Amino acid sequence: MESLMIYMPIALAVLGLIYMWVKQSWVMKQDAGDGKMKEISDYIYEGALAFLSAEYKLLTIFVVIVSAALAVVSFIVPTTHILIVVAFIFGAVFSAFAGNIGMKIATKTNVRTTQAARTSLPNALKISFGGGTVMGLGVAGLAVLGLTAFFIFFFHFFMNGTWTNTMDMTIVLETLAGFSLGAESIALFARVGGGIYTKAADVGADLVGKVEAGIPEDDPRNPATIADNVGDNVGDVAGMGADLFGSYVATVLAAMVLGNYVIKDMGGAIDDLFGGIGPILLPMAIAGAGIIISIIGTMLVKINSNDAKEAQVMGALNKGNWTSIILVGLSCFGLVTWMLPETMQMEFFGEGLQEISSMRVFYATLVGLVVGAVISSVTEFYTGLGKSPILKIVQQSSTGAGTNIIAGLATGMISTFPSVLLFAGAIWASYAFAGFYGVALAASAMMATTAMQLAIDAFGPISDNAGGIAEMSEQDPIVRERTDILDSVGNTTAATGKGFAIASAALTSLALFAAYVTFTGIDGINIFKAPVLAMLFVGGMVPVVFSALAMNAVGKAAMEMVQEVRRQFRDIPGIMEGTGKPEYDKCVAISTQASLKEMMLPGLLTIGFPLIIAFAPLAFGMDKLAIAEMLGGYMAGVTVSGVLWAIFQNNAGGAWDNAKKSFEAGVEINGEMTYKGSDAHKAAVTGDTVGDPFKDTSGPSMNILIKLTCLIGLVVAPILGGHTSDDNHAKTEIKKEVKIEVNSNNDEMAVATITISKTVDGKVVTETKKIEGSLEEIEMKAKEYGDIISVDIKKTGKETKKEVEVVVEKQD
Amino acid sequence: MESLMIYMPIALAVLGLIYMWVKQSWVMKQDAGDGKMKEISDYIYEGALAFLSAEYKLLTIFVVIVSAALAVVSFIVPTTHILIVVAFIFGAVFSAFAGNIGMKIATKTNVRTTQAARTSLPNALKISFGGGTVMGLGVAGLAVLGLTAFFIFFFHFFMNGTWTNTMDMTIVLETLAGFSLGAESIALFARVGGGIYTKAADVGADLVGKVEAGIPEDDPRNPATIADNVGDNVGDVAGMGADLFGSYVATVLAAMVLGNYVIKDMGGAIDDLFGGIGPILLPMAIAGAGIIISIIGTMLVKINSNDAKEAQVMGALNKGNWTSIILVGLSCFGLVTWMLPETMQMEFFGEGLQEISSMRVFYATLVGLVVGAVISSVTEFYTGLGKSPILKIVQQSSTGAGTNIIAGLATGMISTFPSVLLFAGAIWASYAFAGFYGVALAASAMMATTAMQLAIDAFGPISDNAGGIAEMSEQDPIVRERTDILDSVGNTTAATGKGFAIASAALTSLALFAAYVTFTGIDGINIFKAPVLAMLFVGGMVPVVFSALAMNAVGKAAMEMVQEVRRQFRDIPGIMEGTGKPEYDKCVAISTQASLKEMMLPGLLTIGFPLIIAFAPLAFGMDKLAIAEMLGGYMAGVTVSGVLWAIFQNNAGGAWDNAKKSFEAGVEINGEMTYKGSDAHKAAVTGDTVGDPFKDTSGPSMNILIKLTCLIGLVVAPILGGHTSDDNHAKTEIKKEVKIEVNSNNDEMAVATITISKTVDGKVVTETKKIEGSLEEIEMKAKEYGDIISVDIKKTGKETKKEVEVVVEKQD
Repeated sequence: MESLMIYMPIALAVLGLIYMWVKQSWVMKQDAGDGKMKEISDYIYEGALAFLSAEYKLLTIFVVIVSAALAVVSFIVPTTHILIVVAFIFGAVFSAFAGNIGMKIATKTNVRTTQAARTSLPNALKISFGGGTVMGLGVAGLAVLGLTAFFIFFFHFFMNGTWTNTMDMTIVLETLAGFSLGAESIALFARVGGGIYTKAADVGADLVGKVEAGIPEDDPRNPATIADNVGDNVGDVAGMGADLFGSYVATVLAAMVLGNYVIKDMGGAIDDLFGGIGPILLPMAIAGAGIIISIIGTMLVKINSNDAKEAQVMGALNKGNWTSIILVGLSCFGLVTWMLPETMQMEFFGEGLQEISSMRVFYATLVGLVVGAVISSVTEFYTGLGKSPILKIVQQSSTGAGTNIIAGLATGMISTFPSVLLFAGAIWASYAFAGFYGVALAASAMMATTAMQLAIDAFGPISDNAGGIAEMSEQDPIVRERTDILDSVGNTTAATGKGFAIASAALTSLALFAAYVTFTGIDGINIFKAPVLAMLFVGGMVPVVFSALAMNAVGKAAMEMVQEVRRQFRDIPGIMEGTGKPEYDKCVAISTQASLKEMMLPGLLTIGFPLIIAFAPLAFGMDKLAIAEMLGGYMAGVTVSGVLWAIFQNNAGGAWDNAKKSFEAGVEINGEMTYKGSDAHKAAVTGDTVGDPFKDTSGPSMNILIKLTCLIGLVVAPILGGHTSDDNHAKTEIKKEVKIEVNSNNDEMAVATITISKTVDGKVVTETKKIEGSLEEIEMKAKEYGDIISVDIKKTGKETKKEVEVVVEKQD
Repeated sequence: MESLMIYMPIALAVLGLIYMWVKQSWVMKQDAGDGKMKEISDYIYEGALAFLSAEYKLLTIFVVIVSAALAVVSFIVPTTHILIVVAFIFGAVFSAFAGNIGMKIATKTNVRTTQAARTSLPNALKISFGGGTVMGLGVAGLAVLGLTAFFIFFFHFFMNGTWTNTMDMTIVLETLAGFSLGAESIALFARVGGGIYTKAADVGADLVGKVEAGIPEDDPRNPATIADNVGDNVGDVAGMGADLFGSYVATVLAAMVLGNYVIKDMGGAIDDLFGGIGPILLPMAIAGAGIIISIIGTMLVKINSNDAKEAQVMGALNKGNWTSIILVGLSCFGLVTWMLPETMQMEFFGEGLQEISSMRVFYATLVGLVVGAVISSVTEFYTGLGKSPILKIVQQSSTGAGTNIIAGLATGMISTFPSVLLFAGAIWASYAFAGFYGVALAASAMMATTAMQLAIDAFGPISDNAGGIAEMSEQDPIVRERTDILDSVGNTTAATGKGFAIASAALTSLALFAAYVTFTGIDGINIFKAPVLAMLFVGGMVPVVFSALAMNAVGKAAMEMVQEVRRQFRDIPGIMEGTGKPEYDKCVAISTQASLKEMMLPGLLTIGFPLIIAFAPLAFGMDKLAIAEMLGGYMAGVTVSGVLWAIFQNNAGGAWDNAKKSFEAGVEINGEMTYKGSDAHKAAVTGDTVGDPFKDTSGPSMNILIKLTCLIGLVVAPILGGHTSDDNHAKTEIKKEVKIEVNSNNDEMAVATITISKTVDGKVVTETKKIEGSLEEIEMKAKEYGDIISVDIKKTGKETKKEVEVVVEKQD
């Protein structure tokens, strides 16, 4: 029987989208300012649309190719259904749509924030954060809506909306994986392409504008300045949105797969108020609740005083954030205790079945919430203004760029210490509480606040843009001061947001990794097998090479931009005097083309490697399960190394950035106050140049790399997996073995303890019964459990005990 | 019966040491030049001795502490013998002694090379390479001598020099692991401490001397110049020597452990010409043969013309190197076919026992030789002057230090691609040929040319020093030109030597890792268990943090040096005019003290982490085998991540160095020739500053980190391991099960097929026999295979067949 509960997440997602629409209308109704401001804002808006439309063209080609490949696979592999193609396309479309909403609102909100800042800081915050809220709810709402709708559709299509068995549900979830793959593919384009775009424009604008021509940042005479501002939106808004959209969907999906696995461990069916799929519905329910909670959280973000400083703004954001985290914790308690059986059986590798209470699942969700909160503090410590690591980098800048670089690299590297210990502890704890289902639910709980996190995150680049517009339209200094307060807070939230994104990517990948192992039906991933170990090495290498390719891509794209800006300065008469009009669109086009071209190679690396590992040995006739184990080793290598390089690059980049910014207010070096323009500041600028691609291109791309790798593994799993190939089909059948122990020497009247071992999908569930009677009677009764194939009589050496063994085998 | 073959490696090692002594005497007899030269050389010699004696003091404390800890362990754990302490001490002493020989000869050879270069380049090469040869043979000879002597001693002590069983041999090899641990501990001090020393002195000398005071490199007025030259010896000679000494010993040890495991797989005993220990002796025999082959190789290194250039010198080195590689290949063929059974049985995880021919073991050794040769080419490609990666970095220097740094980082990162694919391919291939025994023998074959590699490697810093002495003693420019030719070749061999050291560390760690798994008796390392996965993460993080600590250590030590040099320039009257004498010894003392102090934290990290992982859960009563698996996950994480960071840092550092050097001869940037002193050159100097600790401190330290981690695991193994704890003791006993199938319904006259399954150490060996007679007669005969514990009578359902099962269990 199907429960109405299945529709709850959809209802909440729709509610979230309605609220988003209301908020969006409110923002759009705000004053967009005067002519000059509006003009600049329109340029940015059009530039953003230009990037999106170029991206969509490329995406369409990509989606068609992948769809064709998936369709071919679905015809070859019996358990892969053609509907995976539909799910894939919708996953891509939903994510792209969410990105579109975010970009549009961000580029519309920036100018309205500037306008509001002319009179009121509280209003400016309200508008910029309102824009962020629209973005956050768009992503979260569409993610939950799409995933849940497809789940319901497939649940009816494959199972008629009623629980049959875990095998059928596996097909439902495997098909649903297409949606997640689609979403993550968009993230690849948005995050990697966007990362290259934003830095190419930034470096190009700075190198020629600031360094060569000596004009300030965001000067309207600089042809690349619009591309630079578009880049903030492309990279920080659309990229981050697509990244979290992907994480959100993948996490919930992985938790659902592992929920199905819990039902398997409990004998293949459970009796609950939710049509027997409580453990599968739970992650969706948490995600749905998270949307409403995020709305509440965003409502709390406001300030009252026009004289508020960074601390008040940060306080308002923190209030909203912490409220939503606490509310998610409370709702997890309610949902877990309501939706899960009081005790469950879960298989722990090497330890067999264990009784797990639903409270332990709740504890696992708390682990996830703690990780989400703590990782932000860790990131804040290593990259925050005024914190000791930044002060050290500032000191090291006094002896030149070399020592500044070393200090920044070392800071990023050392920051892996607490971060990795935190992740390792979280994996361990959530697993100890509730197995890999616990790990996946920890990730789900953490991701439940996605809408709130994104609102906080997107508000940063909006304020940054607002400041840029204030500068370009030559507003009163007070306007820039107000937007700078918001921007400064936005820089901090950008860093902590990156920490959250890494944590979400790491936990998501682990959950996907666990789902992969259960999908393929392998016994685990044993790195003492040399091919698996070799793939662990190869997997570890890929994030390093990917990062290098992304960094080089920025360099190449930036060079094209530099040449275009130089050309315009040379060829357009009166450009420096402000009488000639720069061709902003040409720079936008160059950033767009170059970024999409340069992301091809790293993209190919991401998608190509797991496919080669899966299919090349298959072509040589290697055992499928051995390949599955190798691919698992590769996934683990990518995840471990990718998480390390993500932390390293993001934090090093963030630290260099803030070390440079420290000079703006002045820093004390060897007892002397040092400011912008000093040699030490120049050294710090060099560090920031290195850090830019680290923190905005290669670092954040790691998230996509590790998630996409694990997702490709999950989609490939049915091809390699145990439960689909014919020779392994027997594994899914039910086999019963009955063992009778007779405590008597007398065959005519024995009291027998029968142990019935039922093997379901390779797992043994044991039950005990007592039967009295003669051997024949016992055999008769035993037949009720299945056909008797053989009877064993066992005579112990000492003849004090007689054993009768009846083996029954039955195929249900 | 013991074979004389066991004494062969000792004999060859002694032969190598005698040749070393002859060569040493020859070098010492060469003209050491005039007063000024001799004076400078003496300063360097004394500085080197000062470092050694300070290091030895610290080492003594360290050795005493570790010895005490090992002694305690040996009293608690029954199978860990107190003799491990003796082996440990000797391992440390032998390695220290080898380092001492190397440092002394290097600091004596440098001035003799300078003197020879006054008249003849061929002679200068002969002397500098002669010094390198002494170093190489000292390391290789002492390593083989020590390891073999202790093996023979323990073989007699524990087994009376006769094969008993694999269990006893395991105790021999576990005790022998102490020798390896001792050697690797010294490497920690020499490589990490030495790496910090050399860069602190270098940076200190350059920063104040070259940058602040504006005097040239190697100027005798610079108080830090002697420390700088001592540093070359400490880091490049003693550090590299101790590193390879450790690899050499550990590789052979691991191969011996896995050889013992092969004998286990073959039923616990084999019959061969070598007292039944052929597979264990083989790696020692290859090492012994390698010494003689290296002597032949070094004899081929000579040039005839006084007008020779880099190419001729490089050619001479290559001739010697390739000859030794080919000869090792040939000797492997001879030794493998002679010493191993024609076919062996080896257990492959998940695939069971397989028949492996000795030819396949030979193929595995070829894999090792290929890796050793190819990795050098890969390193040469990414770091060599005139190669495309270097040219790209040079181009990127034109836009400033930022782009130079990005290009260098990217080069190092991309270089992991071919390197890791090579290692992964090597693991796979050598394992496919002959299991982990094959992997260990691949490493052994590669390491057989250690003496030759070290000779090539040590010749570089000797020539570098010779050039420094020429400069400081104001020789005729032709002298410096000649030493520069040698130095330039030495720079290339230094880079390729680093590649060789990484490859050796990687393969050694894999071999140790495999040995660890067999020692502990775990079923493998399943990363699908969350605690194991968590430890994989933690292990992956440690090399990153270690590198950062090492880099920071250089910074701190360099700062102390800077202040001392500044003080001397300020306080010593007439120092700049050459009338005041700089206090060289103070600078040497600062480098020495600072380097040894700063290596404490990374050293603690290396040793502490695996011990915490092993003992903290033990204190909480966690299952030992579960801990062993976790520690294995940690080891794998350290190895994978450590190898990646070693390649990345070494190659990035090497690339920056040569990008900077490219400017000396002039480079073409955007169509213009650019030289030293240009802005692009300054940017390249910044890159080199960052690269210095990368390539000389943190990068090479990775080798020690990964080997020491795996060695600590191996030494801890008996405490966690299956075969030593009481509850697992049963595993090592022999259990026989006899199963009789009777093809008759008649109990009085049955023809039975008996299957005897023998379980040895958890492994099942099966044998089949036919017995005729009555059931009683069958039981009687079955008793010959052991005590009958129970008799089973099996009646098939269809009653067409009757089965009698006799289970026999016996404890031998």
